[in-house]
Amino acid sequence: MATGFGCFAFPGTPCFSTNKSTPKFSHSSIFTRHSQLPSFFSLSTKITTSQSETLTHTPERDSPHFNYHYLDDQILRDVAHDALVWSSLHGLVIGDKSVQRSGSVPGVGMVHAPLALLPMPFPENQWREACELAPIFNELVDRVSLDAGFLQESLSRTKKADEFTSRLLDIHSEVLEIDKKQEIRLGLHRSDYMLDEKTKSLLQIELNTIASSFASLSNLVTELHRYILSRHGKLLGLDSKRIPANNAINQYAEALAKAWSEYNNRRAVIMIVVQAEERNMYDQHLFSSVLIDRHNITTIRKTLAEVDQEGEILPDGTLSVDGQAVSVIYFRAGYTPLDYPSESEWRARLLIEQSSAIKCPSISYHLVGTKKIQQELAKPGVLESGIVQNVAATIVGQLWQECMVNVWDFWMLVSLQSYQSLLREKLKVSNRV
Amino acid sequence: MATGFGCFAFPGTPCFSTNKSTPKFSHSSIFTRHSQLPSFFSLSTKITTSQSETLTHTPERDSPHFNYHYLDDQILRDVAHDALVWSSLHGLVIGDKSVQRSGSVPGVGMVHAPLALLPMPFPENQWREACELAPIFNELVDRVSLDAGFLQESLSRTKKADEFTSRLLDIHSEVLEIDKKQEIRLGLHRSDYMLDEKTKSLLQIELNTIASSFASLSNLVTELHRYILSRHGKLLGLDSKRIPANNAINQYAEALAKAWSEYNNRRAVIMIVVQAEERNMYDQHLFSSVLIDRHNITTIRKTLAEVDQEGEILPDGTLSVDGQAVSVIYFRAGYTPLDYPSESEWRARLLIEQSSAIKCPSISYHLVGTKKIQQELAKPGVLESGIVQNVAATIVGQLWQECMVNVWDFWMLVSLQSYQSLLREKLKVSNRV
Repeated sequence: MATGFGCFAFPGTPCFSTNKSTPKFSHSSIFTRHSQLPSFFSLSTKITTSQSETLTHTPERDSPHFNYHYLDDQILRDVAHDALVWSSLHGLVIGDKSVQRSGSVPGVGMVHAPLALLPMPFPENQWREACELAPIFNELVDRVSLDAGFLQESLSRTKKADEFTSRLLDIHSEVLEIDKKQEIRLGLHRSDYMLDEKTKSLLQIELNTIASSFASLSNLVTELHRYILSRHGKLLGLDSKRIPANNAINQYAEALAKAWSEYNNRRAVIMIVVQAEERNMYDQHLFSSVLIDRHNITTIRKTLAEVDQEGEILPDGTLSVDGQAVSVIYFRAGYTPLDYPSESEWRARLLIEQSSAIKCPSISYHLVGTKKIQQELAKPGVLESGIVQNVAATIVGQLWQECMVNVWDFWMLVSLQSYQSLLREKLKVSNRV
Repeated sequence: MATGFGCFAFPGTPCFSTNKSTPKFSHSSIFTRHSQLPSFFSLSTKITTSQSETLTHTPERDSPHFNYHYLDDQILRDVAHDALVWSSLHGLVIGDKSVQRSGSVPGVGMVHAPLALLPMPFPENQWREACELAPIFNELVDRVSLDAGFLQESLSRTKKADEFTSRLLDIHSEVLEIDKKQEIRLGLHRSDYMLDEKTKSLLQIELNTIASSFASLSNLVTELHRYILSRHGKLLGLDSKRIPANNAINQYAEALAKAWSEYNNRRAVIMIVVQAEERNMYDQHLFSSVLIDRHNITTIRKTLAEVDQEGEILPDGTLSVDGQAVSVIYFRAGYTPLDYPSESEWRARLLIEQSSAIKCPSISYHLVGTKKIQQELAKPGVLESGIVQNVAATIVGQLWQECMVNVWDFWMLVSLQSYQSLLREKLKVSNRV
């Protein structure tokens, strides 16, 4: 779920240009603390887009389909050269899959991240709309996560068909049984949108509640685009000042730091749960560097297998990994069946859930992020029937329904293990059409 | 000559630890303008070391042979991990020779630069001495470069034995014949020192007058060491505040910008003459980025072959390459016979020398950098006999003689094409001893 469809995998890459829609990310965070107080408070309301877009500018270029082919070859070569150099000097890099160890050792086999050379024009109103929707949808995720019955019931059919969802639901049930309250809840979410050209409306593809990636690299893409336009903007007719602010990396770090601070153990670390092979590691390292530089908080990186080997829950509920107390767990792995090759990883996931550490996300948030739940929420009447128990219920419900793109036939497949092959089949068919 | 001996090839790498000497770099620049005035002025007097060293600190660690083996394994792993991550995110990288195109396309096949994990203790007095010597030796280079007879005579025997030096001398003669005055002269020099443990004196291995590399990467090494000590300094007993300032990259850029400004053509660019394959390209790109960011000066990169194809001298003496006026030429190639595989490259070198562009270095500065000349200057009486025609002559002479290490047997080989194989032989012998 972290990267959604393959074409969303890298920030700023123009794609879907043939189906008249523009992909778009919106990063946001929600931080809630349930203490003895009867109500919770939401700390983060601001969001930023991860992709840097110019707002409307010169009319002749103001189309979502800015055509690179109109550009002079020499300018294009210069822009590409400058972009590659800038990326190399500023950490806008990933591991190169053709180089051994590039996914396991930092500083080895690096290559510039795939990127769009120029920002993509995007209508300002819809951009603001995405920003405004983010905290509302964050609250929706939080409310839905508290309705354990709804989650279990909605996923009951999926549970029978899909081993992965079934195991997640089992952990969810076990945590319910021990009546483990998640008093502090943290979500770092990313909504993926497409702009429908006909209706000019934002359509949400999905809302990612686990391992939402590219907050760091997309931040760098904004800086890169500003740099490129400061050098070549005049020739291109693009103004760097029209690129909106992107502060996603700092806001993610702030949310994690806030959670760390609420947990109130100054010796504790933040643990990033990682895949053993992670070519997108620099997105994560940038993040850790902000946490240490700005907040003086140490992060450690562990695979689920390592958590199983080195982890234990102390009598007071503290998760200890390799002798270090862990206050916050930030999952950048664990969202795909591939991340659980043995029982060891499942034990680690349960251990984490049973501890008092703040999980980002908790098993409940993770389940809300399943396509099946997001599809349920888009059904008329569901949101109004008690899940969102406040006056804004209907409004939230309407917003969600309006924003969810009608991709039912994609979603019904998502929880099946055969998802990938079916999706591939599906794409073949649609290409033929 | 740019990187001197192989073991000097990367900044901050501890080496020569078995021969009781500590390698050390000292970057500096000299900028002189000979206008109608009878005397010239030197603009740059400050220098910085490229390698970041801690000055004396805790007594038990205050040895040039800080032993990494005493470090706890886990600390060492943590430091190495942090150093690799930091390098990747800050452009402290080079091209990986095992990856195709890593020496020709930026952003492809990058790997962290080889580096020392920690700064090397170095006595403060000798460090200051190196800083103070730099502008004096810069002036020496400039004075010697003006004595065409001395250069030709000193290199007359080498000319017969070595084709490469012979061609350089031919260009030198041709320029003398057309009476081409180099009114503005710019040098970016790097002195390589070793600290003799017995006498505690600095011994200069050589002074590089062409393609002195690592001003940029070594700057980053200083920042890296500060970062590492800010994180692990307490455990290691090292204080980041004791790392001296290193501003080499900005001072190099300032010197080039000053030359560009003196040339007085706002449309002109600075041209970096590069090798077709350059794995150390990021050291150069960092440099260019400072020139554009701080001084708004565009650099272009050309090989000597490209200069031959695209270059011409306009009637007013301006060098034009691919239609762009070039005000300053910064050589990062052209210092080895390998950079002149055909007559094309020699034509380019002559074309550059015949133009009014400011060469960094001029053919004369290049010749002063030959080992043969540096050896001549170290002979008693040479400097006092008229080359350095001012009151400081004797002092400069003494300083030079005191600083030049007695490596005659290395130097006598340097101008021979068989240098490398002989050196290898030599090293084998000394290893056996």
